[in-house]
Amino acid sequence: MARVSQEHLDARRRQILDGAARCFARNGFHATSMQDVLGECGLSAGAVYRYFAGKDELIAAIAEECFGAVRSAFAEAAAAVPPPTPDVLLAEVLLQVLDRVPLDGDRSASARLIIQVWTETLRNAALAGALEGGFAALRRIWADLVESYRAAGLMPEGPAADHIARTLIATAQGFIAQQALFGEVEVAVVRDGLRGLMSMTVPAEAGPAGG
Amino acid sequence: MARVSQEHLDARRRQILDGAARCFARNGFHATSMQDVLGECGLSAGAVYRYFAGKDELIAAIAEECFGAVRSAFAEAAAAVPPPTPDVLLAEVLLQVLDRVPLDGDRSASARLIIQVWTETLRNAALAGALEGGFAALRRIWADLVESYRAAGLMPEGPAADHIARTLIATAQGFIAQQALFGEVEVAVVRDGLRGLMSMTVPAEAGPAGG
Repeated sequence: MARVSQEHLDARRRQILDGAARCFARNGFHATSMQDVLGECGLSAGAVYRYFAGKDELIAAIAEECFGAVRSAFAEAAAAVPPPTPDVLLAEVLLQVLDRVPLDGDRSASARLIIQVWTETLRNAALAGALEGGFAALRRIWADLVESYRAAGLMPEGPAADHIARTLIATAQGFIAQQALFGEVEVAVVRDGLRGLMSMTVPAEAGPAGG
Repeated sequence: MARVSQEHLDARRRQILDGAARCFARNGFHATSMQDVLGECGLSAGAVYRYFAGKDELIAAIAEECFGAVRSAFAEAAAAVPPPTPDVLLAEVLLQVLDRVPLDGDRSASARLIIQVWTETLRNAALAGALEGGFAALRRIWADLVESYRAAGLMPEGPAADHIARTLIATAQGFIAQQALFGEVEVAVVRDGLRGLMSMTVPAEAGPAGG
């Protein structure tokens, strides 16, 4: 019976987190009250406070789920040997992230939750630290990918791998913002857009006019 | 004397907007009260309410200044003939935008204000409409640029110009998020990062394995 009980506890915890995620995605962290969360979950205060001492614990748990979605989607997609090129990889990771954030596969709601996490980190030092750690890890992974593209002859030597890594992360972040604000981010948009960029002719190093 | 008076009115209005922008960049729109704005400006309620009926008017005015910064920076940078390639253009526009948002050239504060505007649009229909209009205009401008890169032989035909446009806008948005969250977005990061991507070999269209 202990096993059933643990399952029940886990399901109840999940129910609370899902309800809170829906509230936060809709109204942001600051404008959401614990009363809103109780109403969304259809649970009493007593039932919710058994699991989470307050809104800050809920915020931390949900932000950690968002970070986890990014980490796991990326680790799986980048593990293929040889790694997919950025047009394929970034599209895959992006949509996987949006599907894994706990909002029932509603990609726009998931993206809204992620950008709420971004603004929340501006006034929450613990979240900011977690986000910075995640960003540093992603930079290293993408920089390693750049080196493997170079080793495979797909990209010439030149610009700093870290700068290319940051640019690819920026592209993913920007598409999350677009999905949150305007919707309609599809695989084809990301993949074809990056492929178009990759097909450009790189201009010669800019120098003085006529030089 | 009417002229001096108008200058005084304009300067006072500017003082209020600057103070409000600092508050909003720091704490977001929802968590900032009119009392916070008064304190930041060092003005009385009477002095401020002569110019703005309330927080919503301040938010609308500041969001419009952010949109205006994007529009004007972009229009100027894209007007060069022939237009700069994306690595040069995007870096220039991005830093110009961050310098033009009214926060005394503090790029991180400007970026924080912009991502606060994004989340505010999630619950403010008027702002959302303005942002969507701006996004549509940027998509057209970037798509036209893609066509001019193609006409100049810098980019082969292929992926939809609009998808490439959205990808470049996403990159800019993502760098704004990085500047807000982590700082350190420099011209070299953006320019070299895009240049690295542009230098990649485009893989053949993916098809069935062995097909």
